[in-house]
Amino acid sequence: MEEHTVYIFYDIEDDGIRNKVAETCKDYGLQRIQFSGFSGMLGKNKREELFLKLSFLIGDKAGKLLMLPVCEKDITAKRELIQENRDDSD
Amino acid sequence: MEEHTVYIFYDIEDDGIRNKVAETCKDYGLQRIQFSGFSGMLGKNKREELFLKLSFLIGDKAGKLLMLPVCEKDITAKRELIQENRDDSD
Repeated sequence: MEEHTVYIFYDIEDDGIRNKVAETCKDYGLQRIQFSGFSGMLGKNKREELFLKLSFLIGDKAGKLLMLPVCEKDITAKRELIQENRDDSD
Repeated sequence: MEEHTVYIFYDIEDDGIRNKVAETCKDYGLQRIQFSGFSGMLGKNKREELFLKLSFLIGDKAGKLLMLPVCEKDITAKRELIQENRDDSD
């Protein structure tokens, strides 16, 4: 099964559900790229399975969940800025 | 200039900067899809311009910013769950 890069972003208010969603993304080998965002490589079946699991975790609670498969061509066009917290204050 | 769907997601701690980033995304006609996520149609030049503006707003402060152009084929494969807050508690 061919794997594609996939991005997952979510808005979930409930701390317990949000943590379970993050843990489930990690279980599928995805990397945390933002506080509520993961990415990694997944085949189509695993993507579908993961989306169903995450939807099940959210249940009928308020929440937004986006799963976005992105092809190699689009990946080359992405732009990213990553600046970590600095402890020094100068 | 051909327009592509673009997604923007960010993690920005500073409230003032985060609000300015959101306002700037709106100025470019993007729609808010999550608390820290926007999407819409932009040509390549506008995308580059917007990424530079957002990077300038963040400056040297801590922050993560991802701009992801997504082709039509990938858009058809996206999965999304949107459940708004309900006021009833039954």
